[in-house]
Amino acid sequence: MKLKNPIKLASIAQQIGAEVIGDENATVTGINEIHKVEAGDLTFVNVEKYYKKALNSAATFVIINKKVEAPAGKSLLLHHDPFDAYNRLVAAYYPVHNAFSKTETISAETNIHPEATIYPHVVIGNHVSVGKGSIIFPNVVLYDNVHIGQNVIIHSGSIIGGQAFYYGKKNGEYIKWHSCGSVQIEDEVEIGSGCTIDKGVSGDTVIGRGTKLDNQVHVGHGVVIGKNCLFAAQCGIGGKTIIEDEVVCWGQVGITKDVRIGKGAVLSAQCGVSKSLPGGKAYYGSPARELKVVQKEMAALRNLPDFLKNKHM
Amino acid sequence: MKLKNPIKLASIAQQIGAEVIGDENATVTGINEIHKVEAGDLTFVNVEKYYKKALNSAATFVIINKKVEAPAGKSLLLHHDPFDAYNRLVAAYYPVHNAFSKTETISAETNIHPEATIYPHVVIGNHVSVGKGSIIFPNVVLYDNVHIGQNVIIHSGSIIGGQAFYYGKKNGEYIKWHSCGSVQIEDEVEIGSGCTIDKGVSGDTVIGRGTKLDNQVHVGHGVVIGKNCLFAAQCGIGGKTIIEDEVVCWGQVGITKDVRIGKGAVLSAQCGVSKSLPGGKAYYGSPARELKVVQKEMAALRNLPDFLKNKHM
Amino acid sequence: MKLKNPIKLASIAQQIGAEVIGDENATVTGINEIHKVEAGDLTFVNVEKYYKKALNSAATFVIINKKVEAPAGKSLLLHHDPFDAYNRLVAAYYPVHNAFSKTETISAETNIHPEATIYPHVVIGNHVSVGKGSIIFPNVVLYDNVHIGQNVIIHSGSIIGGQAFYYGKKNGEYIKWHSCGSVQIEDEVEIGSGCTIDKGVSGDTVIGRGTKLDNQVHVGHGVVIGKNCLFAAQCGIGGKTIIEDEVVCWGQVGITKDVRIGKGAVLSAQCGVSKSLPGGKAYYGSPARELKVVQKEMAALRNLPDFLKNKHM
Repeated sequence: MKLKNPIKLASIAQQIGAEVIGDENATVTGINEIHKVEAGDLTFVNVEKYYKKALNSAATFVIINKKVEAPAGKSLLLHHDPFDAYNRLVAAYYPVHNAFSKTETISAETNIHPEATIYPHVVIGNHVSVGKGSIIFPNVVLYDNVHIGQNVIIHSGSIIGGQAFYYGKKNGEYIKWHSCGSVQIEDEVEIGSGCTIDKGVSGDTVIGRGTKLDNQVHVGHGVVIGKNCLFAAQCGIGGKTIIEDEVVCWGQVGITKDVRIGKGAVLSAQCGVSKSLPGGKAYYGSPARELKVVQKEMAALRNLPDFLKNKHM
Repeated sequence: MKLKNPIKLASIAQQIGAEVIGDENATVTGINEIHKVEAGDLTFVNVEKYYKKALNSAATFVIINKKVEAPAGKSLLLHHDPFDAYNRLVAAYYPVHNAFSKTETISAETNIHPEATIYPHVVIGNHVSVGKGSIIFPNVVLYDNVHIGQNVIIHSGSIIGGQAFYYGKKNGEYIKWHSCGSVQIEDEVEIGSGCTIDKGVSGDTVIGRGTKLDNQVHVGHGVVIGKNCLFAAQCGIGGKTIIEDEVVCWGQVGITKDVRIGKGAVLSAQCGVSKSLPGGKAYYGSPARELKVVQKEMAALRNLPDFLKNKHM
Repeated sequence: MKLKNPIKLASIAQQIGAEVIGDENATVTGINEIHKVEAGDLTFVNVEKYYKKALNSAATFVIINKKVEAPAGKSLLLHHDPFDAYNRLVAAYYPVHNAFSKTETISAETNIHPEATIYPHVVIGNHVSVGKGSIIFPNVVLYDNVHIGQNVIIHSGSIIGGQAFYYGKKNGEYIKWHSCGSVQIEDEVEIGSGCTIDKGVSGDTVIGRGTKLDNQVHVGHGVVIGKNCLFAAQCGIGGKTIIEDEVVCWGQVGITKDVRIGKGAVLSAQCGVSKSLPGGKAYYGSPARELKVVQKEMAALRNLPDFLKNKHM
């Protein structure tokens, strides 16, 4: 996320107790995890095997736990615990714990179109927009930084913009990454009852135009879903996965994190997707593979008991 | 659904811009999808292969996109886009978007027994009834047209009567069918926390007497569940499926749409049901098949690695 | 559960219409199901094959439907329907149906730390505590007898402390066991959006220190989860199962009731656990077995179609 007010690097170094390697007068304009960095952004790296990736990324500033030379045009912050330093900065500059008013159910800092319908017992956080013609049914919760287009329908009990399920591990305990991303729901989307759609850690979760979700669908942090997709009830999609346009997932499909499902793929009910899948094909099973391949194996398996029995006679 | 006030066919023809083939003075008494039609009903057909079914159905009136002769006792409405015409009629005569009051959490047009318990933060739409001795826990939402019998328990966060996940496809986009059905929860039913039970598109979703649902169970539009069934947590049932009496589904079972599960069938946890299953038997796996058949295949598969290894020696 | 005020056995006998075998002046100090009994407790048994277990249990008092001699130091209550008698006693002494105030969203009998954050539209029952630094997001419901430690985060729409999905069967109908247990959420736990965590029937459901649950996770009655475990979205855990420390379950894992998962076990997405599993290993599939065993079978199955084809040439 971009910072509301850019900050001098020296000021950040002081805040986290880091040593500057490079230009302490340079200006930081955003704080982002490595997957989402742009010029002006600060990111971090704490594992040797990712040093190169971080130092060569688009980020202008990197918090790092080893004294190395700053690449041209970049400055580094030397710190013994880069993740902790990064996380404290996110918490300071994107205070998610003030996501809701404690007294008002609809925060003052929202932008709700007069022709949108907000039913009773909806709770809305800061920096939320709802477009013309959209209908938000009772008991929906919109966390902060949720943006909803036109003619969107969100059914009762759905939770949009919850914090990412994303932790670092330290001394056997899970340390929460603070989420500062957003959720973007494009026009003509319909979301069923009891769905949960988390915000990105530092990027956006996107549901593309015209896509329809049935009840109890889970969409993880930073997932990007294309246009005119269909998700039947109880599907779950892991963090940062990309679903291209016109994908159809039948009931209870599970898709792991960090994969890509190609345009027009059709996933049978209860598919379990463990890797990226090309578009335009039908998939089946857990792990999900091409339907026709799985069908051949299932047919062979049906014959196996008799075959083995005859062999032993 | 039956219409509140029956309408002359001529009036409907004018409303949707259709040509009458037959008796324009005939009276339409209901509007229903083809699965649910009775005498006096209006339905539609837009695909050649279903013409015969629609014209021979119990419906007295059919919106159709080809000039054909009206069968005896029936009248037709000729229209270039029957689905769109039908859908506009449903939206006009069953205005689902007025399902809730915008200001009151419990609509004025409800019938709640004085000996029923409604806990805080429950939201109730129009034309809802709750019988004697029933308990509705906090944060439950009852959409319009939900009817709850006696001694029913509905746990927190469950959403009853949401709109069907049911779309027509037109030029690559999904067009929503308006739902005008209802949900009927019979006496002595218990529904866990976080369940979602959708209303029928034009018929009823029914949960039979004494049936118990655990948490996070999903029941699709128009599903009919018999008496004294048991559904463990996170089961999902697709639209219009019929579950006969005394069926037991263990956790995370998924059942596809439009099938029938026979009386007393027992489905193991995580079963995936892709077709109708006879009653009185135990089923296992995805796709779900008779337990004893699957067990034989699983036993054979366990021996397969060693068998193939020996063959290649 | 221990009784608020201990009761003379004679008084209970009169209340349920039972005959005392033993000391009618003895004092009952708790009422518990057989899995949880301690000295001073009353339990019941109604099936011949469990008589021995009940009579040899730690319980001091047993409701039984056969005239037998009382073991040393114990007294019996002879009753024709022990389950019904037991259940009526639980309903009388632990009145769960008064779990919430009908007018106040936060019950008077709670203990919420001044430094905890309770967002709007949270509903809280009686005898609930929330520790310092904990955050309860909008639309969460805490039933009675829920105890939440320090620095716990519970996301929107989660339901903690719902009643157990636990029934006796009598003449083909399911009779509800009244739940009188509690839920204990230890320090530093995070619970995602739309989760459901039921209370124990007569014991406690426990989520151990530092454990993290993603969205839409279901935890059944009386489940005990250890410290620093991770549950990805849409996992479900059956009643009274024990999960030791540092277990990781990826998305949509289902675990049956009454089993134990050993320390540090890792369950792949969509695993279906049907029996206890030793710790320190990776598991895969439904039924879940050791990953490396399943991988061998999957590899063999991939070769099976060609193998069988060649055999028939």
